[in-house]
Amino acid sequence: MPQTRPPSEFDAATAVRRAEGGGLAAELDPGWDVGGGILNGGYLLAVAGRAAVLESPHAHPVALSATYLRAPAAGPATLTVAAATAGRTLANSLVTLADAGGPALVVQATTATLGDDEVVWSEPMPDAPSVEECASLAEHRHVAEPTAPLPGLSQRLETRLDPVTAGWALGRPSGEPVIRGWMRFSDGRDADPLAMALFADALPPTGFSLGRMGWAPTVQLQVLVRALPAPGWCFVEARGGDMAGGWVDEDYRIWDSTGRLVARSRQLARASR
Amino acid sequence: MPQTRPPSEFDAATAVRRAEGGGLAAELDPGWDVGGGILNGGYLLAVAGRAAVLESPHAHPVALSATYLRAPAAGPATLTVAAATAGRTLANSLVTLADAGGPALVVQATTATLGDDEVVWSEPMPDAPSVEECASLAEHRHVAEPTAPLPGLSQRLETRLDPVTAGWALGRPSGEPVIRGWMRFSDGRDADPLAMALFADALPPTGFSLGRMGWAPTVQLQVLVRALPAPGWCFVEARGGDMAGGWVDEDYRIWDSTGRLVARSRQLARASR
Repeated sequence: MPQTRPPSEFDAATAVRRAEGGGLAAELDPGWDVGGGILNGGYLLAVAGRAAVLESPHAHPVALSATYLRAPAAGPATLTVAAATAGRTLANSLVTLADAGGPALVVQATTATLGDDEVVWSEPMPDAPSVEECASLAEHRHVAEPTAPLPGLSQRLETRLDPVTAGWALGRPSGEPVIRGWMRFSDGRDADPLAMALFADALPPTGFSLGRMGWAPTVQLQVLVRALPAPGWCFVEARGGDMAGGWVDEDYRIWDSTGRLVARSRQLARASR
Repeated sequence: MPQTRPPSEFDAATAVRRAEGGGLAAELDPGWDVGGGILNGGYLLAVAGRAAVLESPHAHPVALSATYLRAPAAGPATLTVAAATAGRTLANSLVTLADAGGPALVVQATTATLGDDEVVWSEPMPDAPSVEECASLAEHRHVAEPTAPLPGLSQRLETRLDPVTAGWALGRPSGEPVIRGWMRFSDGRDADPLAMALFADALPPTGFSLGRMGWAPTVQLQVLVRALPAPGWCFVEARGGDMAGGWVDEDYRIWDSTGRLVARSRQLARASR
């Protein structure tokens, strides 16, 4: 008899259901925090992305542009999806995620169906150390802050940092705002387009590599999913652009285990001064 | 007596006024087309950005994320601005630009007031040939297509391409999806944050450098304005990311005449096959 696998932590935590009386509802899971009870922005974007796909004729989010209005509380949330256009190739909608305090996240979602596409041009993966040569983010955090509880996000995701970009955890920031490493779900779930919304905001702030250890709340985040990820580890690189006047921008590029670029993101965030 | 300068072409073409009976109105100017009567996406974004600023306590757009639903016609357009949050540091709103055919463009706008900020980290400008060493895009287009009318956008903007990235115009595409060059308004207007929305989508598609001469209609475009541009030429670089399955993504970085990075953008577009 085939075993029935339980749903993955990510699928359970991002589940969206039709609510009584219309509309969509989700239960925001406190287990996806970045510390201090603040839910990870990529996790919230994945919930919104799931709502967009549910109301679309297409299977995958290919572009998600989000504005973070306020940090929602864990617990019940509602999702409203306003369809704009739906065609053979793509559909556009506007998704609003709200908790009891009101709207928290507004997302412009473009959905389409990704497949086994002919690649004309693709950005190659940079030289990367093997997973075994990389440093566990969870262990690293314990070295840097032995008494701090490990954020939920760092438990749900297994992240192995390229040692060249992990010096900040040992008090030796590299001086270049780049953090990169291998990433996968801790429970073995494979990556897919929705997971890219999460992975694209799941590394520590690149300001850490400049010795600025503050949190950087996201203001706007755009995630593009460019291909279906193959099973296995993804290689995720975050690169800070400009940091000035209390703002910072950051780019992510994500390659799958075959070396195919599968997603990229950019965000504008408030920088701690 | 001081001379009164007429408003610049850009300011006149992006003017937004309060309409009778409430709401905002604009007159989309046919002179900002990319050929075939299609208005440039950056031009439309600048109109929406102006509406956002008009309804904000802050002076500048710092993040604009747009979804292009359909190409609007030149002529009368309405703009609706739904405020989401407005604080001391920033404000968020949702702007919808519509013509007689309905909504054409939806923009999430974050506004703030940029100033003379302390720079912690900034991406340096790449080595660039001087303006004199670069090739006029307008003249280039005439060489490549002597009988085609010059699009309005190429008349309103003066663009001098780095010759290394201009081979496509002479039938010798470089094979690398990069196009860069100096850009300014033809009528001498200085660049400002609103102009960045235009500049960030104003180079030819980078697919040209791969020998793919088709038009690439934008699906989503995010523009971040990171600093106030100094007067003079801007250096604009567009770089294609992935081209696959009928989609292409493209990054812009814009530096001002002092070499300060002032804006960056990313878009997902449909690629001609």
